[in-house]
Amino acid sequence: MLFKDKFRLHTPGPTPIPPSVQHAMNRPMIGHRSSTCSAIIQESSKRLQPIFGTKQDVLIITGSGTSALESAVSNTVQAGDEVSVVVTGAFGDRFAKLTERFGCHVHRLDIPWGERCTPEELKSHLRQHPDVKAIFMTYCETSTGVLNPIEELARVAREETDALTIVDGVSCIGAVPMEMDAWGIDIAVTGSQKALMLPAGLAFVAVSERAWQVIENNATPRFYLDLSAYRKSLGKQTTPYTPAVSLLFGLEEVLNLIEAQGMDNVIARHRLMMEMTRAGIRALGLPLVATDEAASPTVTSVYGTNDVHVEDLRQTLSAMNVTVAGGQQHLKGQIFRIGHMGYCEPGDILAVIATLEVALKTLNVPVSLGRGVQAAEEVWARV
Amino acid sequence: MLFKDKFRLHTPGPTPIPPSVQHAMNRPMIGHRSSTCSAIIQESSKRLQPIFGTKQDVLIITGSGTSALESAVSNTVQAGDEVSVVVTGAFGDRFAKLTERFGCHVHRLDIPWGERCTPEELKSHLRQHPDVKAIFMTYCETSTGVLNPIEELARVAREETDALTIVDGVSCIGAVPMEMDAWGIDIAVTGSQKALMLPAGLAFVAVSERAWQVIENNATPRFYLDLSAYRKSLGKQTTPYTPAVSLLFGLEEVLNLIEAQGMDNVIARHRLMMEMTRAGIRALGLPLVATDEAASPTVTSVYGTNDVHVEDLRQTLSAMNVTVAGGQQHLKGQIFRIGHMGYCEPGDILAVIATLEVALKTLNVPVSLGRGVQAAEEVWARV
Repeated sequence: MLFKDKFRLHTPGPTPIPPSVQHAMNRPMIGHRSSTCSAIIQESSKRLQPIFGTKQDVLIITGSGTSALESAVSNTVQAGDEVSVVVTGAFGDRFAKLTERFGCHVHRLDIPWGERCTPEELKSHLRQHPDVKAIFMTYCETSTGVLNPIEELARVAREETDALTIVDGVSCIGAVPMEMDAWGIDIAVTGSQKALMLPAGLAFVAVSERAWQVIENNATPRFYLDLSAYRKSLGKQTTPYTPAVSLLFGLEEVLNLIEAQGMDNVIARHRLMMEMTRAGIRALGLPLVATDEAASPTVTSVYGTNDVHVEDLRQTLSAMNVTVAGGQQHLKGQIFRIGHMGYCEPGDILAVIATLEVALKTLNVPVSLGRGVQAAEEVWARV
Repeated sequence: MLFKDKFRLHTPGPTPIPPSVQHAMNRPMIGHRSSTCSAIIQESSKRLQPIFGTKQDVLIITGSGTSALESAVSNTVQAGDEVSVVVTGAFGDRFAKLTERFGCHVHRLDIPWGERCTPEELKSHLRQHPDVKAIFMTYCETSTGVLNPIEELARVAREETDALTIVDGVSCIGAVPMEMDAWGIDIAVTGSQKALMLPAGLAFVAVSERAWQVIENNATPRFYLDLSAYRKSLGKQTTPYTPAVSLLFGLEEVLNLIEAQGMDNVIARHRLMMEMTRAGIRALGLPLVATDEAASPTVTSVYGTNDVHVEDLRQTLSAMNVTVAGGQQHLKGQIFRIGHMGYCEPGDILAVIATLEVALKTLNVPVSLGRGVQAAEEVWARV
């Protein structure tokens, strides 16, 4: 009965591609050393700066978000270095694994999944480990839908140590406030397939002057992910290795869309979608994973209940053309996650909540049809 | 007078995208952990096997060709290892730089740019360095348009040493014969934006059982480019990190196109295009860089002359909507390179040679209009 290609993609990345971005990616292929491609690289890097809140170069890597995370590790640390990693979920854990792989002596600050790291917790951790060379943290922890208070955490890091502050912003930069320079963040990283509304394949890295000094004196072997090579090439309006040109075509149009809306409005839209989603879920009596204080504007995680088996629910939603994500690692089967970032707006949230109600009904879960969507509408109506 | 978007892209990568591939990349975005995406990953890996001439898994990395070259280095060698690198141009040089970066004791076998490495040269080199752990070689040296006799070189490598034979096939796999298993090659690598007719952003790596044993015992730190992680994930029909999904959509259609034509016919088409290009260039009196024996079916390099200044010629051609590449490193300004791979066929070669004649005339170079194109036509007519 339903269309095969009309599904609503609400995973926390990849996210739907706007038609104009899709269209831009259909430009005929050009040489990556052409002046046309150089202009796209140089201008896009500049236009990404306000999204990161930085005056530094934003480097463009062809790879997944993880390639950029690795670059933030392999360029800054050496085997034997002491580092701290704030682990609030699966992606904090990935940062920890990366630093371990590169031979670091890793101090994990493990926070229960679903909670955020408080400035006090970080302060007390750093007082035990004052000699760390770098502190790795996750802005939005995609696996739980938690937004860490990164501005405060960066402040604590700067006050307590001389370490570099390195932030994984993959699932939120472009949707939430990010003032890298003002907040004293040394490296911030994101990927193309989240708030930036592109297919996966590009990753973006911004680096402070302080971090460049460390990078230039770092002997850890690296080549493809050697950030100095990207910086040097960007100075010549290009990339050191062949970039994913079709995604660069798309990036140009993504930046048009973000600039046309204005970054403040983009941020406000994501907050509104978060509040609508949370109001809807709450009205349906389903337990939210994150508290209001800790919730991310880009993804909302919801626990299953005795009545609601999350994998059954995901399957039922999928048959109704709504795709949401499941849990990762020990939360698999325990939670589902609704992505609401990038090319997503309030009307999409209403459709998701409303479809969720029908899905629950189909699964014989007691539910008042319309109650969740009404709560979400009320949030929107108040704006 | 000319259309802005009708340029003929004849760089040796990126190459033009077939319309059906472009169309496929417009499918609505899907989650990369969906069953649909898993099926594409698993089937594409299988369908790439005959292109590599292997029964081994073909791993799919999101990155440039260089990311795959690095994976072939960082997964197989450790600091202090002796390795040999056959350097016939800029990409052999990149392999040498990569192995140096990872701390290897590198024995370069430098061959004058424009020539190929003969089996005798490799044999004599390896007799001086019998203890190397790995031998790196370039199948098509993109910077000069030379095709190394990789089958014979691999045989020599196997006869003279126990080293792994590692082949950069970026600018030719998918256009030339490649029998990785039969020829005793341990790792072969290519990228998406050359013979495989896609935008850049995917890279492909095939690995022998012998190489897996080395990889599994190799301690060099690596994470994003850790081939074992890709193998393990492929066993679960997925990738360890978010793949470039839109390019995977395109890959599926590329494989349809190659299978519909048949790999033997694809190879024959590339040989014919090479012979036509060379006949045309010769008839115009321009000096070819590679000898007939050493010429690559995917790219033809041509020297400038006293009359023909290559950068002027490239600019003139560009204004006539034909894009060819210049030289790299010390060949910059000395040669130009005509790519003829991927979505390219004999008629395109006629158009390039004919336009080249008009460009030469425009630059007041003595030229008999039609002579080059006639020579190319004669080659095609003989098929």
